[in-house]
Parts: sequence; structure tokens; C-alpha cells
Amino acid sequence: MFFASDNSGPAHPAVMQAMMDANTGYQSGYGEDSLMVEVTQMIRNLFEAPEAAVYLTATGTAANSILLATMANPWDTIFCSPMAHIHEDECNAPEFYSGAKLTLVPAQNAKMTPAALHASMEAEESRGVHGPQRGPVSITQVTEKGTVHSLEELRALTDVARNFGSKTHLDGARFCNALVSLGCSAADMTWKSGIDTVSFGGTKNGLMGVEACVIFDPKLAWEFELRRKRGGHLFSKHRYLSAQMKAYLTDNLWHDMATAANTSCARLADGLRGHDAASLLFEPQANMIFAELPRRDHKKVQDAGAHYYVWNGDPQSGDPDQPLIGRFVTDWSMTHDAVDQFLQVLRS
Amino acid sequence: MFFASDNSGPAHPAVMQAMMDANTGYQSGYGEDSLMVEVTQMIRNLFEAPEAAVYLTATGTAANSILLATMANPWDTIFCSPMAHIHEDECNAPEFYSGAKLTLVPAQNAKMTPAALHASMEAEESRGVHGPQRGPVSITQVTEKGTVHSLEELRALTDVARNFGSKTHLDGARFCNALVSLGCSAADMTWKSGIDTVSFGGTKNGLMGVEACVIFDPKLAWEFELRRKRGGHLFSKHRYLSAQMKAYLTDNLWHDMATAANTSCARLADGLRGHDAASLLFEPQANMIFAELPRRDHKKVQDAGAHYYVWNGDPQSGDPDQPLIGRFVTDWSMTHDAVDQFLQVLRS
Amino acid sequence: MFFASDNSGPAHPAVMQAMMDANTGYQSGYGEDSLMVEVTQMIRNLFEAPEAAVYLTATGTAANSILLATMANPWDTIFCSPMAHIHEDECNAPEFYSGAKLTLVPAQNAKMTPAALHASMEAEESRGVHGPQRGPVSITQVTEKGTVHSLEELRALTDVARNFGSKTHLDGARFCNALVSLGCSAADMTWKSGIDTVSFGGTKNGLMGVEACVIFDPKLAWEFELRRKRGGHLFSKHRYLSAQMKAYLTDNLWHDMATAANTSCARLADGLRGHDAASLLFEPQANMIFAELPRRDHKKVQDAGAHYYVWNGDPQSGDPDQPLIGRFVTDWSMTHDAVDQFLQVLRS
Amino acid sequence: MFFASDNSGPAHPAVMQAMMDANTGYQSGYGEDSLMVEVTQMIRNLFEAPEAAVYLTATGTAANSILLATMANPWDTIFCSPMAHIHEDECNAPEFYSGAKLTLVPAQNAKMTPAALHASMEAEESRGVHGPQRGPVSITQVTEKGTVHSLEELRALTDVARNFGSKTHLDGARFCNALVSLGCSAADMTWKSGIDTVSFGGTKNGLMGVEACVIFDPKLAWEFELRRKRGGHLFSKHRYLSAQMKAYLTDNLWHDMATAANTSCARLADGLRGHDAASLLFEPQANMIFAELPRRDHKKVQDAGAHYYVWNGDPQSGDPDQPLIGRFVTDWSMTHDAVDQFLQVLRS
Repeated sequence: MFFASDNSGPAHPAVMQAMMDANTGYQSGYGEDSLMVEVTQMIRNLFEAPEAAVYLTATGTAANSILLATMANPWDTIFCSPMAHIHEDECNAPEFYSGAKLTLVPAQNAKMTPAALHASMEAEESRGVHGPQRGPVSITQVTEKGTVHSLEELRALTDVARNFGSKTHLDGARFCNALVSLGCSAADMTWKSGIDTVSFGGTKNGLMGVEACVIFDPKLAWEFELRRKRGGHLFSKHRYLSAQMKAYLTDNLWHDMATAANTSCARLADGLRGHDAASLLFEPQANMIFAELPRRDHKKVQDAGAHYYVWNGDPQSGDPDQPLIGRFVTDWSMTHDAVDQFLQVLRS
Repeated sequence: MFFASDNSGPAHPAVMQAMMDANTGYQSGYGEDSLMVEVTQMIRNLFEAPEAAVYLTATGTAANSILLATMANPWDTIFCSPMAHIHEDECNAPEFYSGAKLTLVPAQNAKMTPAALHASMEAEESRGVHGPQRGPVSITQVTEKGTVHSLEELRALTDVARNFGSKTHLDGARFCNALVSLGCSAADMTWKSGIDTVSFGGTKNGLMGVEACVIFDPKLAWEFELRRKRGGHLFSKHRYLSAQMKAYLTDNLWHDMATAANTSCARLADGLRGHDAASLLFEPQANMIFAELPRRDHKKVQDAGAHYYVWNGDPQSGDPDQPLIGRFVTDWSMTHDAVDQFLQVLRS
Repeated sequence: MFFASDNSGPAHPAVMQAMMDANTGYQSGYGEDSLMVEVTQMIRNLFEAPEAAVYLTATGTAANSILLATMANPWDTIFCSPMAHIHEDECNAPEFYSGAKLTLVPAQNAKMTPAALHASMEAEESRGVHGPQRGPVSITQVTEKGTVHSLEELRALTDVARNFGSKTHLDGARFCNALVSLGCSAADMTWKSGIDTVSFGGTKNGLMGVEACVIFDPKLAWEFELRRKRGGHLFSKHRYLSAQMKAYLTDNLWHDMATAANTSCARLADGLRGHDAASLLFEPQANMIFAELPRRDHKKVQDAGAHYYVWNGDPQSGDPDQPLIGRFVTDWSMTHDAVDQFLQVLRS
Repeated sequence: MFFASDNSGPAHPAVMQAMMDANTGYQSGYGEDSLMVEVTQMIRNLFEAPEAAVYLTATGTAANSILLATMANPWDTIFCSPMAHIHEDECNAPEFYSGAKLTLVPAQNAKMTPAALHASMEAEESRGVHGPQRGPVSITQVTEKGTVHSLEELRALTDVARNFGSKTHLDGARFCNALVSLGCSAADMTWKSGIDTVSFGGTKNGLMGVEACVIFDPKLAWEFELRRKRGGHLFSKHRYLSAQMKAYLTDNLWHDMATAANTSCARLADGLRGHDAASLLFEPQANMIFAELPRRDHKKVQDAGAHYYVWNGDPQSGDPDQPLIGRFVTDWSMTHDAVDQFLQVLRS
């Protein structure tokens, strides 16, 4: 019953095996390995983007920060939602890499609204050289609250950005979960919706630690490479990153793992909907649920061994009726048994 | 016959196995995994430093840059040799992380001399607020030219630093090769010689990609953690870094691998010494050789399949008598057969 | 009728004369001039702070940014109101100098409320190393909307900061206007209210271009000096900055000029209150008014030669009834005749 | 007998008068003043560059750093001489603004040699993404040692830069002294010699504190403006900077002042050449002399009231025969009497 995070579970055995298979003989380092040639081609195929530049980093913060730094000037502001991972959970890394600041755009269901984005972007640059200039927009898909932008919603946001001359980055730490949720193609959810660069996440979906950075305009490629190296994120033994990503892309492993995670999540959401004391804060569309439960329920399931974050209070002590918010995340390795066991304890 | 780099060979099977073993069940992320508790203790034991703060990064550039940023102010200058990896091969990462600049101290055999370090440090701060202030000293051990500082040489340099109120960082990308070469303890080569922080390298010595950052003064620990996160270098699935480092420290694997690399290197150096046309530029003391050979010899061995960098010209075309410098690096996986085969081709 | 800004008017003749007087013979540069010794003592006297470190910069953005950088770490967030000059009008300078980000605290009448500051500060650091850490609080006095914090309001904010272990900076670009408005001492409005550092503005109050940076804890002094130099803000011919500030502090010139500006502002505010079509958006307490007037009124006074910013529309074209917000700022040189002329045109 | 620095003397009375004249009525701030329109045109005329972008800063460090940041990427290295002011005397400001590092190119008479520049530039970028990339070249004219590049020497350096695809910055803190020394036009010494941007110094040549930044390619203009503001170097009451620069450019005041300074310097140099115990370290070509004298001579003239820096020892105590290096700088206000008095004391 481990719902704490989708980075707490194991990597998929096929991923580990791919690293084992890569562990023979000599290979050029620093991204010059032969596996990376394959990975680049596979990602271009997946995204139907034959010109795209493709790079790997080992952390999502690195992927986001280096991509945004490649897109933004130090005197810009980057537009994102107030819940954006780049704002809340990266300890100023995007600002460190880019020099830019962040403008928090009001959001509904953790999604910036086009009207709010328009208003925020319009407000900037009204002060000439005195205020920050308009930089890129960053959208998180799946959002930090477990919701998913429809293609229409993505297009509406990227249209606003484009009208102001700005580019758009997609923080896809849970990209595959969103793709499975929408049932569309990677191209649909990115460049066909006006997205310019993508953090294509693997770590939260069964890899050991790899994100692909996909840049549809290859003119930005060399700058990205220099920024990655300058940030200390270019791996000498790069083949092991390539191997993971290749396994991810082989036989649709990414799709299978995201499907498994989303299915477990839907099962858990259904169970919570059937529990009167529970209420869902957002409509879970991928692999993450925010649910309010009375403290007594949190205590009961945690005493029974369930692991997850409780957002706004200690589940162990206080008024048993007080509602507290729990965050439940499922990964590819979550079993239906674990979900059912959790629900059974909750209902008992 | 692959002498290009000690980051081109495979990881040790025990390291891969350790990652496989770690790949079960759920674990807290971001350095909170249970393996890391063990690793911290093992490194404290190895360094006889029960208070030391210990952190892992996946690249050497990250280890060096974050440690130096934790030691230096943005208005400082960091003292290092002109061949230092932090100067030549990290694309401004140390400057990016710290804000400081580098002062290049004249070196012999790739080692700063105490007199030159003294002169360089004395020259700084003669200009008050106008010039940069004295920051830390960074020493590479094994040096970038394959030489090793004796304990006396280390002490002489750290004494200079200390007299000016500066701390000293050891770039130990090849720490274990140096330790085997000197036959001393990790404590001897670090804090007992006046070193304050260490990049304890694993990647070049048989790991997939892990360096330990060892900070003897734990008061710097929290700043290091914040800088690591802000740089995007804190791994969510940290257990796989811990697993590698634990394997490295178990049953002296690090020692065995460094010994193997150094032994292969000595064998190759002996062979080159016996080849009239070859001359060694530095006395090889660990696992790296710089040797001058006529172009015809480079061409011969490369045509036979040897891989290594030729520093100052194309081995394939030009005056066959022209001497060119080759760099030969051996890693743990280098076989004596490969060395002997190389020497046989050379002599043929 | 020039109400555009208090940096659009002339410097006081006594200030110009002081620079002329300083323009003889040789003087040490870079803050080592003899006038600066006097200035330091005069400011210490004014603030009743015999230990305070005192430095001069030529722009307010420099004063704010260097002070905040001296107080904040690069992984911190600085708390300020959404209208703060450091957020809206300094083109990322505070972020550039400090590396920190800004957290916008909800405000009333352009003043952060203690409850909102408490909530914002509490929300930070709930994420450990993942989110930014709590940095200093920055309060603008006079606020960007022309309101003035009472001593009680200042104390309430600095108490919140202190309880979270944070220090407080006062952006006093219009410090003297606030002091005159409150009728208190400089000590009352700063360290006696819990303020740690002050940008003591002169430029908007009759100087040519000088702000004093006052740091009550002299342990921060040397870092400030290095940061000022590294930012290119240390003047070689520093005596002309000192001369201006000395004139400002002599015979209470600062007080006379701020009084004149505030008096003109009050006269204008009274006139606007008597004009039915006008409404004041904030209670003007110093030398700045935000007033809503129908477009026809804006057009009328601007056609008659009045200068000021209209915030949200073109006064010259559009629906004549539409209310538009004008910002009116008075400086020391504003005459009562100019105010009266403006009001007469408005009423005509 | 004040030879300490050309920033220790007074500003020219005409410059002060110009500021007085500017001190009437209201003016738009932040570089939008009417005087700046005139200044821009006058500088374009002086440089025969009708398209050039022209901006003012109040310090030379700001001018150099913002220009270099506009020309360099954060992953670049900037080439300069080891004596360059940007390296020795700006406390890391160029690195702070640009993110780039500096490569010190061996110099003769404080001038980089074309061969050394070629070798330094060739050595960079041999390491691909690992090392810094080639950034701009910065040449100081007059050099920090009082020598002046001939037009041929400038052209030889800019040719090297251009062949490597790099642009060239001229640190002209003493631009006018060099121009008078060479007897050429501003265009000759800049864009006609391959220079791309110029710090056109005024502060060391009789202004209170203004440098003009001249950018021959106006495509860089907007970036410069944003970087200036972000650095806190955009003056609200900009008219006083404009007024100084206008006075400088009116009736060739810059030329008269530089001529006076150079003439005094030549007179002093002639006197020193006639003093047997003195030897000049560099051939003084503008307004600065480095001369070696026995300690007894330094002591004698300093006891008689002469002011200047002694580089390498205390003139007051030690072996009276020991040669010590003094730096003597003359400014526009230096009288022939003062020079003669110095020489008379020296010879006595």
C-alpha cells in the first residue's frame, strides 16, 4: 500500500536488464554512444518529428531547468501555474539556470486558464525596460494535482503564448500517464498542440532515472548541449541513460507502465468515490489523487501500513473528525491487490 | 586495446548486481533511502571521519562544482593548476555554481608548486575590494597528467592555503588510483594532509556513475544539500546511487579495481620505456600515461585497433617521423593481454 | 503641472552647490574621500545607530538589490508585496544580485498584512530541500501606492519575520516623505521597529542621484562592499556622491524637501476630494496620489499641459465618461501655484 | 604633486556648469531626456557611425561588464591580457554580468600579441562541449601600463578575433588619451580597426562619472538596455549623465583635457629619463608612467608631498638602494609646475 510517490517504486526489470546488456565492452562517453543514436531515432519516430533534437538528463529538475534556460533570457519571466513543480519543488533551479523569474498564473484544477494567461502576459512588458520581459510558458502535463489538459486546453494556452511571441515548454514528468489518459499521440499532445519543447519523463514511470529533452526546433540544440555540460548534467558513461530510454521505448513499455499506473489509480478513485467520508479534490485523470478524509480514516489506513503524504496535518493526533487531504500516487508496479487492500481497510 | 578513457569501460558486475538487488519494493527518495545510511557510515569509516557529511552526485563535474560553491564566495578566486579539470573540462560549471573565478597557479608535472601557490595567493587581495578575494584551493589527485602528489606535497600545498585562511578541495576523480599508488589511507591523503572536502570518485573506477562528496566540517552540510537540489543533482530514485557506492565500498572493491587499473598502466609504461621511439612525458604513477611517439607508430597501433587520444595532430596523415603525444588510460577492466597486444604491435 | 514622477524634477540648488564645492583638488576615490567620513557619522547620528555601516549607491535599484543580496542566500525566497518596486520595476535585478526568488504576499493598500506574511512564510520550508528557503522580508515605505505603514504596522511585519528567523529590509526610496508623514524619528521607523537594513533614498527627494544603504549589523559590511564593487556600483570619484548626501543631511534639507512635497500632495488631494468626478484609490499619506477621473477630465488637464501617468487607458481617445486612473507625484520643487492651476483647469 | 590616479582630480568646470545648466525644470528620466538625443548624435558624429547605439553608465566597470555580457554567452571565455582591468580590478564583475570566464593571453608591454591571441583562441574549443567556447576579445587602450596600441596592432588583434568568429571590445577608460597619442580619429581607432563595441571613458578624463557605451551593431542595443537596467545602472535622473557627456563632446573639451594630461606626462617622463637612478618600465605613450627608482628617491619625493602608488614595497622603510616601482598618472588638471616641482625634489 505504497502511494507516497511514483518515484518510490522499483524500476521495471526490462529497464534493469537493458543496463546489464549495455554493460559490456567499451563505448564512447558523453552522449556519443551508439545506443543514443537509436534512442534519438526512436523518440523522433514517437513524436513524428524527424528534425527534433533529443537529449537525456538524469533528473526532471535538470530537464526542466536546462530547457527553460535555453528558451528564456535572464531578464524574462516564465509563466506557470502556482502549483508548478518548477515553482514549488525545484529550490530555485529554473531561476538559477535561466536567470529569469516566474510569474504565477491563476489556475483552475491546477491548469492555467487561457484568460488568466492572457491577462498575465499582457500585464508584463507594460513597463518597458523596467519590468521583466515576456519569456516562455511552462505547462505541466499531467498537472501536479493529477488533472490532464485536453488537447483543446493545451492549444488554447499555446495560442495565447504564441500571440505574445512566446514559446511553450511542457513539463512532462508524467507525460506517458497523460498520453494514455488522453489516448492521443505524442505529436498530438506536443507540437501539433503548439508545444516547442518537452521534458519527456521516464523516472516516474518505471525508469531508474532518465528524462528525455525534446526540442522541436533544432536551432536550440547546441545551446542546450552547452548548458547541460555547464550544469554538470552530461554523463560520461552515458550509455546507461540511453539503455534505459531505449528499453522504455521498446515494445511500448512506457505505454504499458503508464496504463498500469492509471488503471490502479482509477480503481482507487472508484473505491474512494464509494466511501462516503471521502471526497476527491480534483477529478483524477491519470495516476494521482487528492482526497479529503477524516483524520480517523487516515489514521486507520496508515496504522494498517499505507504510505502516502497527508498535506495539512498530522493523521496520528488531533480531532478524529477533522478532514485532512491525502495525496495518493500509483506507479507501474502498484498491484490491484494493494489497492483493494487499502480500500478494504478504509471501509472496515 | 581501448585506452581512450577510464570512463569508456563497463561497470563492475558487482556494481550492476547491487543495483539489481536494490530494485525491489518501495524506498524513500531524495537521499532518504536506507542504503544511504549504510553508505554514509562506510565512508566515514573509510575516511576515519565520524562527523563527516557525505553526499552522492552522479557526475564529477557536479561533485566538484557544488563542493567548490559551498566553499567559495562569488567574489572569490579559486586556485588550481592550469591543467585542472575544473578549468579545462567543465565548461564553466565551477564558475556557474560558485560565481567565483579561477586563478591558474603554475605547476610542475601537473602539480601546483607550493612556492607558486604562495605567490599566487599573495598577489590576490593586494587590491582590496577591487580584485577578487582569496577563495579555496583545488588539488587534483591523481593529476590530469597521471602524476600523484605525495603526502608531503599535499601537506605543503594545504599549509600554504591554510596560512592564507583558505580551505582546500581535493578533486579525486581518480582518488582510489592515487590511494593505491601511495599505499596510504584515505584519512592520510585527505584530512590528515589538510584537505577539507573531497570529490571521491567512483565513475572512472568501475561504477556506473557516482561520486561521493565528503565534507569534513559538517557545518557546510545543509548548504551543500540546498546547492545540490538547486543544481538539479538530487536524485529522486537515489537508492541506485547508494547501491553502487555501497558495492564499491564492500570487500574493498574500489581497491581491487584501482589496483588492476594501475597494474595495467605500469605494464604499459614498462613496455613503452623499452621502446626506443617512445618517451614518457610524465612519470606515470597511477593509471594514465602521456607518451610521445612518432606518427608512424601511432598509425600502426591505431590501424591495428588501438583506441586512445592523440593530443596534437592527426596520426593518420603527415610526416611519419613527427612526434605526437598520445594519452593512454587504463581502467579496472583492462586485461594484460590487451596491453601486451598493444606493445607487440608497437614493436612489430 | 508636472506630476509624472519625483525623479523628473531638478535637484535642490544646495545639492548642486555642494558638488561644486567638492570639486577642488585631489581626493582619494572609491569611498575613501574625507566627505564620506562625515556622511557616515551624520547618518549614524540621524539613525541613532553608532555602529551602523553606511554606503552610498547612485541608484535605488542598486541599493535594494545589493542590500537584499547581502541578506539572502541564492536558494531563498524574499517576501514582498505584489506592488513592490523590487518585483515590478527592477527588471529582475534583485534576483540577479541575490539568486533568490520573490514570494508575493497579499497586501491591502499596498501593505502586506501580518496575517498574509505569516501564511506565506509558513508555507515556505514545508518542503525541506525541495522548495526555496525563507529569506528576508522587504517592506516599501512610502508604499508604491502612496500609503505609509504606521510604526505599529511595521512592527507587526518585522515581528512575523523575526519569528521565522528572517531579517527585514526597508525600501525607503521615499523614506523621508514617510518620516515627515509619521512625524517620528529615523530610528523609530527602522531599527526600533525591527528593521535590519534600509535603502535611505535621496534621488526622489531632491538629490541628483544618491541612496544611502544603512546596515545596522556591521558584520554584513564587508560583504556589502564586495557585492557593490562586483556589481560595478563603487564610484571612483565618490566624493560627488558624498557631497550630495552631506548637503541632504545638513540643516535638515531632507526634511524641508519632503515636507514641501507632502504639503503639495495634500493640497492636490484636498482639491481632488472636492471634485465630484474624482475618487482617490488609496488614502494619500505622503507625496503620491492615485485618483480615478473620467477620461474627459484627464484629457482636459493634459491638454492644458499637465503631465502624469494614466495607468489603464489613453486619455486622449475613447468614451469620455470612462474612468481612468491617474498617478500624481509631487516633489520638493512642486509649487502651490502649479497645484492650484491644475485644480482650476480640472474644475473649469 | 598628485600622481595617484586620474580619478582623483576634480571634474572640469565646464562639466560642472553643464550639470548646473541642466538643473532646471522637469525632464523625462531613464535616458529619455532631451540632452541624450544630442549626446547620441554627437557620439555618432565623433565615431562617424550614424547607426551606432549609444548608452551611458556612471562607472567603467559597469560599461565594460554590460558590454561584454551583451557580447558573450555564459559558456564562453573572454580573451584579455593578464593586466586587463576587467581581470584585475573589477572584483569578478565581468564574470558576474556575463557568466563567462576570462582567458589571459600573454602580453608584451601590456598588449596581447597577435600570435599569443591566436594560440589562445586556437586552444579553446579543441574540447568540444567540455571546455568553454570562444567569446569576445577585450583590448584596453590606453593599456593598464600606459602603452598605446598602434592602429596596426589593433587591426592585427581584431583580425585574429574575426578569423575565429569573435567580436572585439575596446576598454577605453583612457580612450581620449590614446586618441591624442595616436593623432587619429575615433573611427580609425575603433570600427575602422575592427572594433565592435567601445567603453568610451569620460571619468578619468575630467568628467564627474560617465562612460559612453558605443555599440556599432545596433542589433545588440535592446539587450544592452535590459542588461543595464537589470544591473541597476539605469539612472532615473539621467539628464546629469547626458549633460556631462555633452560638455565633454562640446568644443573638443575631451581633446583638450587629454592633451593636457598627456603633455604633463611627457614632461614628467622626460624628467625621469634625465634622472640616472630612474628607469622607465614601459614607454609612456599617454598619461601613465611606471618607473623604477631607489627607495631613497621615493621616500624623498613622498616626504615632500608627492602622491602616487608604489607597487612593490614600502617607500618609507627598508634598504634605501632597493629599486621600487612607482606608478605616476597625470590628469587634465595637472600643472606643469607640479611636474617641475616633483622633478626638482627628485634631483635635489
